Amino acid sequence: MNQYIKTLVDQGKLDIVLQKNRWKFDQTPYIISGPCSVESEEMIVDWAVKLRDLGVTALRGGAFKPCTYPVKKAIGNWKEGLREDGLKFLISAREESGLPIVSEIMDARQINELSMDAIDVIQVGTRNFQNYSLLDELGKLDKVILLKRGTWGTIDEILGAVERILVGGNSKVAICLRGVVGMPSYRHVFPSTRWAPDLMMIPALKELCEIPIIYDPSHATGYSNFVAPISKAAMALGADGLTIESHPDPVNSISDPDQAVSIDTLGSILKDIYER
Amino acid sequence: MNQYIKTLVDQGKLDIVLQKNRWKFDQTPYIISGPCSVESEEMIVDWAVKLRDLGVTALRGGAFKPCTYPVKKAIGNWKEGLREDGLKFLISAREESGLPIVSEIMDARQINELSMDAIDVIQVGTRNFQNYSLLDELGKLDKVILLKRGTWGTIDEILGAVERILVGGNSKVAICLRGVVGMPSYRHVFPSTRWAPDLMMIPALKELCEIPIIYDPSHATGYSNFVAPISKAAMALGADGLTIESHPDPVNSISDPDQAVSIDTLGSILKDIYER
Amino acid sequence: MNQYIKTLVDQGKLDIVLQKNRWKFDQTPYIISGPCSVESEEMIVDWAVKLRDLGVTALRGGAFKPCTYPVKKAIGNWKEGLREDGLKFLISAREESGLPIVSEIMDARQINELSMDAIDVIQVGTRNFQNYSLLDELGKLDKVILLKRGTWGTIDEILGAVERILVGGNSKVAICLRGVVGMPSYRHVFPSTRWAPDLMMIPALKELCEIPIIYDPSHATGYSNFVAPISKAAMALGADGLTIESHPDPVNSISDPDQAVSIDTLGSILKDIYER
Amino acid sequence: MNQYIKTLVDQGKLDIVLQKNRWKFDQTPYIISGPCSVESEEMIVDWAVKLRDLGVTALRGGAFKPCTYPVKKAIGNWKEGLREDGLKFLISAREESGLPIVSEIMDARQINELSMDAIDVIQVGTRNFQNYSLLDELGKLDKVILLKRGTWGTIDEILGAVERILVGGNSKVAICLRGVVGMPSYRHVFPSTRWAPDLMMIPALKELCEIPIIYDPSHATGYSNFVAPISKAAMALGADGLTIESHPDPVNSISDPDQAVSIDTLGSILKDIYER
Repeated sequence: MNQYIKTLVDQGKLDIVLQKNRWKFDQTPYIISGPCSVESEEMIVDWAVKLRDLGVTALRGGAFKPCTYPVKKAIGNWKEGLREDGLKFLISAREESGLPIVSEIMDARQINELSMDAIDVIQVGTRNFQNYSLLDELGKLDKVILLKRGTWGTIDEILGAVERILVGGNSKVAICLRGVVGMPSYRHVFPSTRWAPDLMMIPALKELCEIPIIYDPSHATGYSNFVAPISKAAMALGADGLTIESHPDPVNSISDPDQAVSIDTLGSILKDIYER
Repeated sequence: MNQYIKTLVDQGKLDIVLQKNRWKFDQTPYIISGPCSVESEEMIVDWAVKLRDLGVTALRGGAFKPCTYPVKKAIGNWKEGLREDGLKFLISAREESGLPIVSEIMDARQINELSMDAIDVIQVGTRNFQNYSLLDELGKLDKVILLKRGTWGTIDEILGAVERILVGGNSKVAICLRGVVGMPSYRHVFPSTRWAPDLMMIPALKELCEIPIIYDPSHATGYSNFVAPISKAAMALGADGLTIESHPDPVNSISDPDQAVSIDTLGSILKDIYER
Repeated sequence: MNQYIKTLVDQGKLDIVLQKNRWKFDQTPYIISGPCSVESEEMIVDWAVKLRDLGVTALRGGAFKPCTYPVKKAIGNWKEGLREDGLKFLISAREESGLPIVSEIMDARQINELSMDAIDVIQVGTRNFQNYSLLDELGKLDKVILLKRGTWGTIDEILGAVERILVGGNSKVAICLRGVVGMPSYRHVFPSTRWAPDLMMIPALKELCEIPIIYDPSHATGYSNFVAPISKAAMALGADGLTIESHPDPVNSISDPDQAVSIDTLGSILKDIYER
Repeated sequence: MNQYIKTLVDQGKLDIVLQKNRWKFDQTPYIISGPCSVESEEMIVDWAVKLRDLGVTALRGGAFKPCTYPVKKAIGNWKEGLREDGLKFLISAREESGLPIVSEIMDARQINELSMDAIDVIQVGTRNFQNYSLLDELGKLDKVILLKRGTWGTIDEILGAVERILVGGNSKVAICLRGVVGMPSYRHVFPSTRWAPDLMMIPALKELCEIPIIYDPSHATGYSNFVAPISKAAMALGADGLTIESHPDPVNSISDPDQAVSIDTLGSILKDIYER
C-alpha cells in the first residue's frame, strides 16, 4: 500500500474507500451523454432516443443548472435550469429511450419524490464537491452517486469526499474527474478553454483504490475540438467510462456552446472506444 | 472600467457588485483572530479577553468545523466541532470580551435562532464558496457575510458569488481571500504549506470593485512562520483587514497545529500594522 | 487559422513555423528509448541491441547530464555525464545496433567533430529550451533537433523557440513535450512525481502547426508506474512518437531510479502501440 | 535546519549556499531601475540622471534583449537590443549619473572586455536561469551576479543554480525573484498579466539561506498598476531590494509598454519604501 495512504489509514481517516470488491457499474465502458441543460421536453426526448441508437449507456441533462454569474432574466421558462419541469421531461426521456438518467442535485432539500423518481444516478456538481451537508444526505440513499471533482480537488479531498459518502452506508459511488485550475497559457489562444484536464489523476486513483472513474472530457477542456482526443486518452489511461456533453445544435446551446459535440463527433468517439 | 468586466455588465451578468458607496466595515483595519475550532468554554472565553486586550477587532472560532477526511471518533465532545455547544460558548466569549463573533455556517438548515444569536459575522467556508443554495439564503439575511474564496476561486467565480448574495438584498458582504491550489514546490520543503497565497488578487479586486477584503494569512500558507510576513504584505497591498488563526497553545491545537500563531507573534503583527 | 496565431503572423512574429509540408520523421511512430545517462560502454551497447530487437526506433543516452544540484564528487568517471567518453560509447552502440543516436548538447561550444559524429538527433534539454545562443547555432546545422519543452514552456514560448531554429534555416525540428510545473497535490502521495503531464498540449499544437511531436512520459510523470498509461494516452492524443527512459536495472540507475522502466514494461508499451 | 535541506546537505548536494556571513550588497534596500531595453544614448543617459536624483541605487538597461518570438526586422538599430552599442551607452550613463550598471549576459561568449567594462552587476535572465555553461563561467568571475528565477524555478532549482555559481568561487550572488507560471484566471481580465508573483518565495528562501534577494515587481505582474502595491509587499516580506522597470514614456516603450512605470509612480514607490 502507498506509504502516505497507509498513514491516513493508521490515523483512522481513510479506510472504507480502500476496501476491496466494492460496487461497480453493471456495464463498462459506461458512456453518459446529453446536453448541459434540459431545454424542452421535445428536445430531450428526441435526443435521448438518438443517443440510445448510437450506443450511449445513460442520458445526462441538467434540470438544476448553476452558473458562475447569477441568471437574472429567465430565457423562456429556463432560469438556471427548467427545474421541476426539467425533471419531468427527463422521466419522459427515460420512458421513450430506456436510458437511465444522470442529473444533478444541488441541495439536500432537493431530495424528494419527484427527483428520486426522475434520477437514476445523482450527480454532485463541481461546486458542491465538498458540500458536506449534501454528501451526508447522499450517504443515506440507495442510489448511485456520481461525485464530480471540484475545479481543484486534491487527491486527499477526492478520497475524503468519497469516504464521507461511504461512511453513511451508500457504497454506490463513482468519481467523475474533470478539468482543474492551475494551468496558464491556453485561454488566450483557445478562448473557451478554462481548465487543465489533469488526466494523470486516473492512474493515480487507480493505484490507490477501486472506486469507478468516469472522465468528463467536455469540462476537462471547455473546447469541443479537444473532446475526441481527450476522450480516447482517458480510456487509454484506464477510465471506466465517460460523460460527454452533446447537443443537437451545439452552437445554439443555452450554455457552453463551444463545448458540446455534435452527433457525428460523438458517433466517431464511440466507434473508436468500442472498436479498441 | 475594465474591458472584460464591462462585457459582463453589458451581458447583465454583473452589475450590483460594481455599484459605488456600498457597505464597509465600521472599523478598519478589521482584525479577526481566534482558534480554528472552539475547544471548550473556558478556552474560548479566556482567549477572547486576551485578544481584545491585544487590540483584536473580532473573535473567530469554529463551532462547525469541516475536515478533509470525515472524523469518525469524537475527541471528547468534539466531532468536526462542538456544534451547538460551540455556539453557546461563543456567546459567553462575546459577553466577557465585548468582541463580535465570526463563525461558519455550512448549510441553510443551520440558520436558526441559536446561530443567529451567536454569530455577528457569518463565514462561508472555502468548501461552500459556490454552494448556491446557501448563498441564496444568506442573501436574505441582515447580517455581515464573510465569503471565503474557494481553494481556487477565479476572479469570475469570486465576483459571481458576491453578486449572488447581493442579488438577494443583503449588501453587507466582504470577501475573505486565502491560499489557492496551483503552486508546486513548497510542500516537500515546508510540509505544512499546501497553498499559494495569491496576494495579487488584492490589488486585482480593488481595481474592479469596492467590496471590502479580509485576507487570511493562516490559510494562505499553512505555516505559522510565514503568517507574520504575509500579514504585513497583505496590508501593504491594500487589504481592509486580516483573519489570523491564533491559539493559546498552538502545538496542541485540535486542528492545524503548524498553522496557528501564539499570542506573542500575534502581538508583534498587530504592533506592526497599527504603527504604520 | 486560430485568431491569436493570426495576430502573431500579422505582426511578423510567427510565420515559418506555420508553413505547410515541412519536415517529418521518416518513420512513425518514432520510438526513442534508453537510459537517462550513458553509464559504461558495455551497458549502452548491450542495451542498444536489446532495444533494437524490441522494436525501438532510436537510442537515447545522455553524455552530458545536467543535474539540479551541482555534482561535486565524480561516481567513477561519471560527473554530470561521461562527456566525451559517453559520446564515443554512443558511437559504438550505433555501430552494434544500427539505431540512430539521440543525445543532448548543452552549449554552442559543444558542437564539434566528435559530437556531430556521435549524435544523429540533437536534443535541446529542458533547461536550455530558451537558450537563444544555442538555438541560433542549431538553426545553422543540417541535423534533426529535438527541442524539449521547458518545465513551463507556454504555447507562445514553444512556438517562438521553434521559429527561432527555423529562422536559421534548419527545418528539421521536432518538439519534445514533457511534464510541467503548476500541479500540486501528487508529490506527497507519490514522492517521485514532480510534474504535470499537460497532455492537452498535443492536440493544442496539432491544431496550430504541423511540427512533429515526441512525447516524454518519463519526464512527464517522474514515476515508472505511470509511464505505460501516459504513453498510451499520448499516442491516443496524436503524438508522432515517444521518448521513454529505460534501464537494464532501473533501481540502480545513476539518475532518476524511480522513473526508468524495465525491458518488460517497455515491451508491453510497444506491443500496445504497434498493435493498435 | 529545515529537514529537507538537511538531507540535501547530507547527500553533499547543497552546502556552500548555506554557509553564514556571506556577501551582501553594500547598501540596502538596493533599488535598481531603468528601461527594459536601452533605446538610445540620449535616452539612457538622461534617464539615469533622473533616476539617481530620485534615489535609485543602480541603473538597469538591456543591451541584449531576448524576446519570446524572434525579432526579424530591426527597429532602427535595435534588434533584440542595441547590443555592443547598448553597452557603450550604458558606460556613458554610468559616467554621467554615477550609478552602477545592471545588465544581462546571455552567453559565455559575450563575456569580453567591453561587457566586463560596462556591466557592474551581471544579470542572468529568466531563460538562462539553468544555462549551466553560462553559470559555470560566471562562477569564475569577480563580479556581482543577479540570478533571475526561471518562470518556474522551484526551490530546489533556485538553490541548485546559486550553489553552482558559488562552487566556481564567486560568492557575490543575489537571487532575483520574479513572476512564475501556474496561475490562471488573471489574463482574460488584465491582458498584460502573464505570471503569478509568488511572493511567498521571499520568506521561504529567507528561512533557508542568507543569499540576498532582489524582487522584480514588473516581471512579477506584467501590469504597471500592480507594480506599486507588489513592491511594497515584497519589501514587507523581507526583500533586500527591488528591480523596477521604468521608462520616460512607458506607452511608447519598445518592449513591454503595459509594464513599465513612469517617474511619478517610481517616486511614490521609493518614498513609501524609504519612509517606512
